[in-house]
Amino acid sequence: MQLLKDKIRNEGRVKSETILKVDSFLNHQIDVELLNEIGKEFKERFRDKEVNKLLTIEASGIAVASITAQYFENSKVVFAKKTESLNLDNDIYKTEVYSFTKNKAYNVMVSKRFINKEDKVLILDDFLANGCAALGLIDIVKQAGAEVAGVGIVIEKGFQQGRAEIEKLGIRVESLATIDKMENNKVRFK
Amino acid sequence: MQLLKDKIRNEGRVKSETILKVDSFLNHQIDVELLNEIGKEFKERFRDKEVNKLLTIEASGIAVASITAQYFENSKVVFAKKTESLNLDNDIYKTEVYSFTKNKAYNVMVSKRFINKEDKVLILDDFLANGCAALGLIDIVKQAGAEVAGVGIVIEKGFQQGRAEIEKLGIRVESLATIDKMENNKVRFK
Repeated sequence: MQLLKDKIRNEGRVKSETILKVDSFLNHQIDVELLNEIGKEFKERFRDKEVNKLLTIEASGIAVASITAQYFENSKVVFAKKTESLNLDNDIYKTEVYSFTKNKAYNVMVSKRFINKEDKVLILDDFLANGCAALGLIDIVKQAGAEVAGVGIVIEKGFQQGRAEIEKLGIRVESLATIDKMENNKVRFK
Repeated sequence: MQLLKDKIRNEGRVKSETILKVDSFLNHQIDVELLNEIGKEFKERFRDKEVNKLLTIEASGIAVASITAQYFENSKVVFAKKTESLNLDNDIYKTEVYSFTKNKAYNVMVSKRFINKEDKVLILDDFLANGCAALGLIDIVKQAGAEVAGVGIVIEKGFQQGRAEIEKLGIRVESLATIDKMENNKVRFK
């Protein structure tokens, strides 16, 4: 997706060979116009798939999924939670995910009320690297006996193994920008 | 806002005199059509105010702010972070907030790059109760030398002191549904 790649080139900041900061438009400040184009593109990529639920994980995925849902008729967004809270039901699907950015393992939880076996679930996230978060969400959809319609990713780190791990499960991955390599403050796309 | 009140009456679950669960449409599963109506209503309530930035706090506020931003021309969303991360700048505005639902104090952080003294900031959140989160966000806007255009709240617990605390600072609060009392599994609106 050219608009997204241009935005990454112009505003992304390469912090190391593996860390790209896109906090000016994707995961701290949010460019909602760009997200609308991203939402249209996800709809286009998954136009052959029946989807009634968009599943993501707090916090950065929420904006992507909410704006994208506007292009998937009659769909609802569900975001998985990372922290226990008085607001969360006791009856939940739960899986453990390791975060390399935060350097710790955490539980990912979804109330059983919000995914059921009739659901066709598109999993969305801002980044795909090692695939831990997406695999956790896939596990939750499977626990619910629902169907994974696919995985939609805004920015994929193509040099990490996330895509391979997901495709191994027979699940389609669509990434709107795939990074091949980052060096000398530059991003090279696939 | 009648549509919202009806939704709360139909789907909200009163857990105690102070706890209302609206996780089927606002803060776990998200009804994006309803959020669009909420966004239009915020625009209507603040039509007299110049706004170029919508500030909220992760995670539940992100969907509300992202959808609402579509009705505020040329605005950007910024969501304050609650956890330290490799993805966060070192140069941040920071304030401490106490969460009664999570029963602990936490830091609220915004990178200095995303609020500056020219900004007219509308603060948005899903709930207003004791006002801690909103007051924390107001503090951050003030640290940045920017202007608070107002505070927009989806559901206010009118029996708690949040509104009074914010109005004391001369800041306008607009809530789309204000709860007077919760008892016997019923919500009474103001």
